[in-house]
Amino acid sequence: MKNTQQPSGMPFHRYRPYHEIIPVDLPDRTWPSKRIEKAPRWCAVDLRDGNQALIDPMSPERKRVMFDLLVKMGYKEIEVGFPSASQTDFDFVRQLIEEDAIPDDVTIQVLTQAREHLITRTYESIIGAKQAIVHLYNSTSVLQRDVVFRQDREGIKQLAIEGAKMCRASEHICAGTEVFYEYSPESYTGTELEYALEVSNAVIEIFEPTPDRKVIINLPATVEMSTPNVYADSIEWMSRRLNHRENVLLSLHPHNDRGTGVAAAELGYLAGADRIEGCLFGNGERTGNVDLVALGINMFTQGIDPQIDFSRLDEVRRTVEYCNQLRVPERSPWAGDLVYTAFSGSHQDAIKKGFERMAQDAEAAGVSVDEIEWAVPYLPVDPKDLGRSYEAVIRVNSQSGKGGVAYLLKTDHNLDLPRRLQIEFSAVVQNVTDSEGGEVSSDAIWTIFQDEYLPAASPESDRWGQYELFRTASTSAGDGVTELNVDYRAGSDDRQLTARGNGPVDAFINGLNANGHTVTLFDYVEHAMSSGGDAVAASYVDLEVDGQRLWGVGIDADTSRATLKAIVSAVNRAVRNSAPEKVAAAV
Amino acid sequence: MKNTQQPSGMPFHRYRPYHEIIPVDLPDRTWPSKRIEKAPRWCAVDLRDGNQALIDPMSPERKRVMFDLLVKMGYKEIEVGFPSASQTDFDFVRQLIEEDAIPDDVTIQVLTQAREHLITRTYESIIGAKQAIVHLYNSTSVLQRDVVFRQDREGIKQLAIEGAKMCRASEHICAGTEVFYEYSPESYTGTELEYALEVSNAVIEIFEPTPDRKVIINLPATVEMSTPNVYADSIEWMSRRLNHRENVLLSLHPHNDRGTGVAAAELGYLAGADRIEGCLFGNGERTGNVDLVALGINMFTQGIDPQIDFSRLDEVRRTVEYCNQLRVPERSPWAGDLVYTAFSGSHQDAIKKGFERMAQDAEAAGVSVDEIEWAVPYLPVDPKDLGRSYEAVIRVNSQSGKGGVAYLLKTDHNLDLPRRLQIEFSAVVQNVTDSEGGEVSSDAIWTIFQDEYLPAASPESDRWGQYELFRTASTSAGDGVTELNVDYRAGSDDRQLTARGNGPVDAFINGLNANGHTVTLFDYVEHAMSSGGDAVAASYVDLEVDGQRLWGVGIDADTSRATLKAIVSAVNRAVRNSAPEKVAAAV
Repeated sequence: MKNTQQPSGMPFHRYRPYHEIIPVDLPDRTWPSKRIEKAPRWCAVDLRDGNQALIDPMSPERKRVMFDLLVKMGYKEIEVGFPSASQTDFDFVRQLIEEDAIPDDVTIQVLTQAREHLITRTYESIIGAKQAIVHLYNSTSVLQRDVVFRQDREGIKQLAIEGAKMCRASEHICAGTEVFYEYSPESYTGTELEYALEVSNAVIEIFEPTPDRKVIINLPATVEMSTPNVYADSIEWMSRRLNHRENVLLSLHPHNDRGTGVAAAELGYLAGADRIEGCLFGNGERTGNVDLVALGINMFTQGIDPQIDFSRLDEVRRTVEYCNQLRVPERSPWAGDLVYTAFSGSHQDAIKKGFERMAQDAEAAGVSVDEIEWAVPYLPVDPKDLGRSYEAVIRVNSQSGKGGVAYLLKTDHNLDLPRRLQIEFSAVVQNVTDSEGGEVSSDAIWTIFQDEYLPAASPESDRWGQYELFRTASTSAGDGVTELNVDYRAGSDDRQLTARGNGPVDAFINGLNANGHTVTLFDYVEHAMSSGGDAVAASYVDLEVDGQRLWGVGIDADTSRATLKAIVSAVNRAVRNSAPEKVAAAV
Repeated sequence: MKNTQQPSGMPFHRYRPYHEIIPVDLPDRTWPSKRIEKAPRWCAVDLRDGNQALIDPMSPERKRVMFDLLVKMGYKEIEVGFPSASQTDFDFVRQLIEEDAIPDDVTIQVLTQAREHLITRTYESIIGAKQAIVHLYNSTSVLQRDVVFRQDREGIKQLAIEGAKMCRASEHICAGTEVFYEYSPESYTGTELEYALEVSNAVIEIFEPTPDRKVIINLPATVEMSTPNVYADSIEWMSRRLNHRENVLLSLHPHNDRGTGVAAAELGYLAGADRIEGCLFGNGERTGNVDLVALGINMFTQGIDPQIDFSRLDEVRRTVEYCNQLRVPERSPWAGDLVYTAFSGSHQDAIKKGFERMAQDAEAAGVSVDEIEWAVPYLPVDPKDLGRSYEAVIRVNSQSGKGGVAYLLKTDHNLDLPRRLQIEFSAVVQNVTDSEGGEVSSDAIWTIFQDEYLPAASPESDRWGQYELFRTASTSAGDGVTELNVDYRAGSDDRQLTARGNGPVDAFINGLNANGHTVTLFDYVEHAMSSGGDAVAASYVDLEVDGQRLWGVGIDADTSRATLKAIVSAVNRAVRNSAPEKVAAAV
């Protein structure tokens, strides 16, 4: 099998590989052998980097809803705006402070460029806050130095140094506020490593970090430019070389241009970072900031406390959709509408078996299912741990098999179909989906099931099949013989039947065989559909009727009647199959 | 700054870390030092793994549209269905073959489970194809062996071996077709590595691969269970140990449960894989299969030919949205509506400067911009290389600054505002966005600009300002003195002005100063708005008028008149600012 792929004609020669722009050389990297073992410090930047990327940026009211959500989820560092660049942002920061909306253990963060009047205004915005992080940035990349700022390395470094000095000189503006610092060499991924280090170290000296007042050095993948392992290499390289490393919080700020933002955050965290900035559901400029929900729940599913509460994820999603006026996509990790849905038959079957096994294991251990280790194929997390129901787990379309159908009947109607009946019925469902296309809802499956196996609640015009049971009476004299008396409808005639056998089922089959049918019983299963005195039973019979092998289903509070109904169900199906026109008339 | 994060209360103890389930130990890994240098063999599974995950699976017609799209883009291996599991899939494969829709250099791939009647039916489906890949799978994970199949390692291995043997024994069914094989130890990421190796090697022996008939061993992250570096380690581990490695195509099939599917594919490819299976835009069960568009364009932006044509990406997206009946999200890498959009002011400014620099560099080199290396801040790819316009690149909201506004005026109206005018005008725009919220379209910006600087096309009721120029005549006698005669409207009065100066601008300002205003000129810029004889000029003046410093703008085919209009514009603005009620009356 030769590779027949052809040149695409795309102008790939216009692009240089990353390693030619920014060499990153760390052959003795250690991060690939490390593991994530605890949550990083999180910083949510939804109100700043996220907000600036919205078609319709948040109103003050929506901003407040977002802020309160982030606080409620457990985020303790929240970038709330760029107050010197927008009156809206300035007013919002003031509102938070003046309305005392910031809990004592939450630190707000404000972004500023390295220019004097912007810095002054930034400090004015945080007057009265208990504490705040002033986040100073300037762009350090090769491209931006050249094209945007037209300054050399020294000039850009001085910009950062002067900015840091102006910050220190402006602290008096908000004397009662404990001010912490963050510095970002913006467009870090486009910056030579040794230069990013040089600038960062210069700024660190000015901020004079101590163990109690660490400085945050944030290394943004402002544009994601390489595979995430290269970003991780660069983070480990920096982490080894930053001055006063013990007093520095190394922070990541990945974007997702290449679709590897989550990986960049995770590998960068392995590589020595202490802190991660991102947005819920990956909102942010272009392809977005790294997705804090994915990162947090990824850790959760590895047995690590994310220190963020994701237990009501649907509510979080709805709130964020309201604030951002953007929908969280169907396949967004852990949160999208479809991410716990299995349409494929084999997946559904495996999930069903996984649930059953967990129930058994929990029962054997005498504990609730919630207390045992989660282990269900195709579901890497228990949706209930995130406050979602199992409702969406199994959805049925033309690609689905017996497992999904069986799961839905069990979950929604307490019917635990025998395996061969599952196969029989899934073919019935697939006939419908193959011809009509589309998804089949649980309700639709129930309608198909009733239509196939269960008598309709029969107003005259709606009689379901050839036969319908009315009164049944079964008498056992203790001599091993049971006499069965049945009132029933055959077509439009009311009739009576008396028959004998070793039990009512045997008697009924004998009676049918004496009345023009040839019926043999192969299998029979019955189970309670609910517990307690008013339990209802479901009965399943596997019969050969007049040469056709098929299943019947009966439901009744009387276990014996349930089985008789199941037999009637199978016989009716056989009659329908052999004489469809007759059934059509009857139905 | 203490870390004040708190325990979340989430039941993380229910989850075991991946390394406790599947140990992967490869301290001498080599992949982190490697680079991607050429495209892998691609296999598009949209019609199978993608299709089975749709709420509304593709109709035969939609399937055909998808198939033709994949062929057109350059995919040479296309998984077209699971013909033994669905009549629709079977019929579709037959249709492709019977309608001769498969180009000679394209190989279709069909999935089958390791069961005899399914295998037979699979071979029946491909009768008449020139070549086909039969893709055999069975689930090998610890969990599925235990919960779903209730068989031990040996039993599950025998299932694979028997399946492979049945395949070989069924080749006679489609004697004219060249059959290749793919085997997937499904749920590979949940399978002990040495066991996945054992089963794969056993199957390889049965398929007897040769250099001309390699066998594909596909190692699916059926569920993504770890950080992508661990998947890469496992791939390198397998790649080193698979028998007849030279005759094996090692294939990846990542899913995206943790949001790191693209990274898993890239790192796994570095780790020695030859081939990647995925879906366009990451469709597929739950969070989706790995996104083939992201992978391909990631390579493209590193100067590597993806061997897939993405040059009409919008068309691809529309077609896929039609086939899948699912929308490609706004932030989907390289393809979403918002991924080339910069709302932030500093980003917009940098992008604008990047475009300008590229135009200069191209001109200096005497080539078209398309021929030089792409280098624009915040845009890792030229949208035009993907068939997208620059239209969406700059969009303006309340978070935007002067750059975006200036860019739009330049792009859409040929107005190249001086930098200080950009700042002045962006404050005008921000006033609007801060008070009204939402995005401001280019049209809206133009309306705001006209409203602020340019006289309305003045029906009587719509007079824009205090002054309006009618006829102007400028006479220079050659003695350094220019006489200017102007007919104009002042309020509702028509008036005439005669003034002298060293040029018409000087004369006009002298005239204004003689008629009750105090006007000083600080700066003046003029440029042509179009080329050719009917060129129109735009003029910008920076004045102090009656104590206010402000800009005026004039547009006219007569360069001299354009400047006079600009002065009128500035004076009118000054009058409006100092006596807004008067203006309101005039307008």
